[in-house]
Amino acid sequence: MTANPVLVHAQRGGIVESFHRGSYAVLDACGAVLHQAGDIDRPIFPRSAVKVLQALPLVASGAAERYGLSDAELALACASHGGEPRHADTAASMLAKAGVAADALECGTHWPYQDAALKALAASGQQPSALHNNCSGKHSGFVCVGCLMAAQRGDDARAFLRGYVQPDHPVMREVTAALQAATGHDLRHAAVGTDGCSIPTYAIPLRALALAFARVATGQGLDADRAAAAQRLRAAVAAQPFMVAGTGRFDTRVMARFGARVFCKVGAEGVHCAALPELGLGIAVKMDDGNNARAVEVVMAALLRQLLQPAGEDAALLDGLADLALKNWNGIEVGRLRWAGDAAPG
Amino acid sequence: MTANPVLVHAQRGGIVESFHRGSYAVLDACGAVLHQAGDIDRPIFPRSAVKVLQALPLVASGAAERYGLSDAELALACASHGGEPRHADTAASMLAKAGVAADALECGTHWPYQDAALKALAASGQQPSALHNNCSGKHSGFVCVGCLMAAQRGDDARAFLRGYVQPDHPVMREVTAALQAATGHDLRHAAVGTDGCSIPTYAIPLRALALAFARVATGQGLDADRAAAAQRLRAAVAAQPFMVAGTGRFDTRVMARFGARVFCKVGAEGVHCAALPELGLGIAVKMDDGNNARAVEVVMAALLRQLLQPAGEDAALLDGLADLALKNWNGIEVGRLRWAGDAAPG
Repeated sequence: MTANPVLVHAQRGGIVESFHRGSYAVLDACGAVLHQAGDIDRPIFPRSAVKVLQALPLVASGAAERYGLSDAELALACASHGGEPRHADTAASMLAKAGVAADALECGTHWPYQDAALKALAASGQQPSALHNNCSGKHSGFVCVGCLMAAQRGDDARAFLRGYVQPDHPVMREVTAALQAATGHDLRHAAVGTDGCSIPTYAIPLRALALAFARVATGQGLDADRAAAAQRLRAAVAAQPFMVAGTGRFDTRVMARFGARVFCKVGAEGVHCAALPELGLGIAVKMDDGNNARAVEVVMAALLRQLLQPAGEDAALLDGLADLALKNWNGIEVGRLRWAGDAAPG
Repeated sequence: MTANPVLVHAQRGGIVESFHRGSYAVLDACGAVLHQAGDIDRPIFPRSAVKVLQALPLVASGAAERYGLSDAELALACASHGGEPRHADTAASMLAKAGVAADALECGTHWPYQDAALKALAASGQQPSALHNNCSGKHSGFVCVGCLMAAQRGDDARAFLRGYVQPDHPVMREVTAALQAATGHDLRHAAVGTDGCSIPTYAIPLRALALAFARVATGQGLDADRAAAAQRLRAAVAAQPFMVAGTGRFDTRVMARFGARVFCKVGAEGVHCAALPELGLGIAVKMDDGNNARAVEVVMAALLRQLLQPAGEDAALLDGLADLALKNWNGIEVGRLRWAGDAAPG
């Protein structure tokens, strides 16, 4: 196996302390590869980076309109949020509009990822619920789709929803169909894993993922309902970027600054995808080591910087995210985490 | 640069989702390399993996005896602990024996790493202190050394201690001298960084780090005071393995089972070192990507398994640490994190 190139350096004391290899692809909606590094044809699990694709049925089915979902709620359906109070409240609101309680969620429960939210919840003597799960918005979107399906069939919603995380459930079949259509990758023969929130995750090459995000950016290559849904979801996230991640988080910070010019979304194990409507491009990145988001965010920032050629504060934000200070417990800068991929092939 | 070999696979859905490259060296106290993979001559920052070497002056100087330090306290001086109540209390006890308060510590403050300790502290409405810093035991050891030095010089302890984290402070010079003697590496010309707790960390090749731990294992190659100190510290950690890490942590679990047969210690950015007295060997591992401990612990478990050839529950513990289940928020096994280095050169 040829090693993927080194894309990120963690520096300390004037030397490279650790480094991260990975691969990325930048494609247009016709499938042309504009930039690439490393192996972009090995199938990888996109994890939460494709939540916007998995949310297409929420809009395309009519469920979002039927239940009167707001921008904040649609943005949360695309989110890996920090479990801050507004995130949990917004998920609860989606479920209430669909007429079901939080125990309909099958994503599991964990403590809020966001540090202050975790401590505040602990200090209040409460325990977390499924609403605090970083995927609760995506799952609330699935539940809304399921409630509409049940109503159309004349089925009891709660009975119909049970097991909606399973690949063969009608809700998940619709989600998988959207993923298949957007990526153009044959998911019937793809490796399939179980994601952190218990839904299936399909192994898809970066080439196909970047193509899917170019389609999200442009609508080209998607049917009319899904193209409209992609545009609606991008607009919702641009209007409510806090909902897609949270306080201080990469995706929130980037989209709060760039608005509708960038849609970007991190996934577990070092994945990041983005859609750039003005350029008609899609981006997909995977770090070999996965593990956490520190390296992939540097890569995404560097690619956005290169592709968008921003100025002023827009440039400063991306520069800071592509080359950031590592500080110790006394607040002393002890190193840098920075883009090292300029020598990468492609 | 030749890529280091892949040592760990993160598997999901029947494929390798992420993988970790790295290098390791196993040496005897004469400097013979018994096993190796990857580049073992590139200097790396050992970070907290060398705390036992940095604690040698605590015993060798006579400070441990002078202040009547217990096994638990000596073990904490070698620790990256989770900030559990017993850890914080033990650091406070060390300082009290030396006659100084917690504000003598210059390691900085962070919330306990251990999840339950963090939540309990938040629930109590309290804030963390420097005693909760994972390095508070090491720093309390430095403070004890400094208090003894001050007493021997007739200086005021608090005034003498100020700035003890700086490379030129007499305490840190003694610590660096111990590191230099154990590793045999010329630290005057080594790259030097600032560690998370503000003391210097010197870049040292894995070959020299593994040699140092073979010396800790055997006493060979160390002067008599440091050899005795190494033996005393190993015995203390073997008697109080909870102190060196904490509830559920790798180093605590391994040493709770193997007792004095294994001394092992993790460091930040994917470093792990170990001493095996019965074999007279030292081990040093560095994962390229650093980031966190998940991969390096798998490598250390696999190397201990291979070198010690244990049976029964001893083998089961290491097998479980070298090939462990990844579970999602619903408790479903979604993948494995496992040793993949059998094909590695060396």
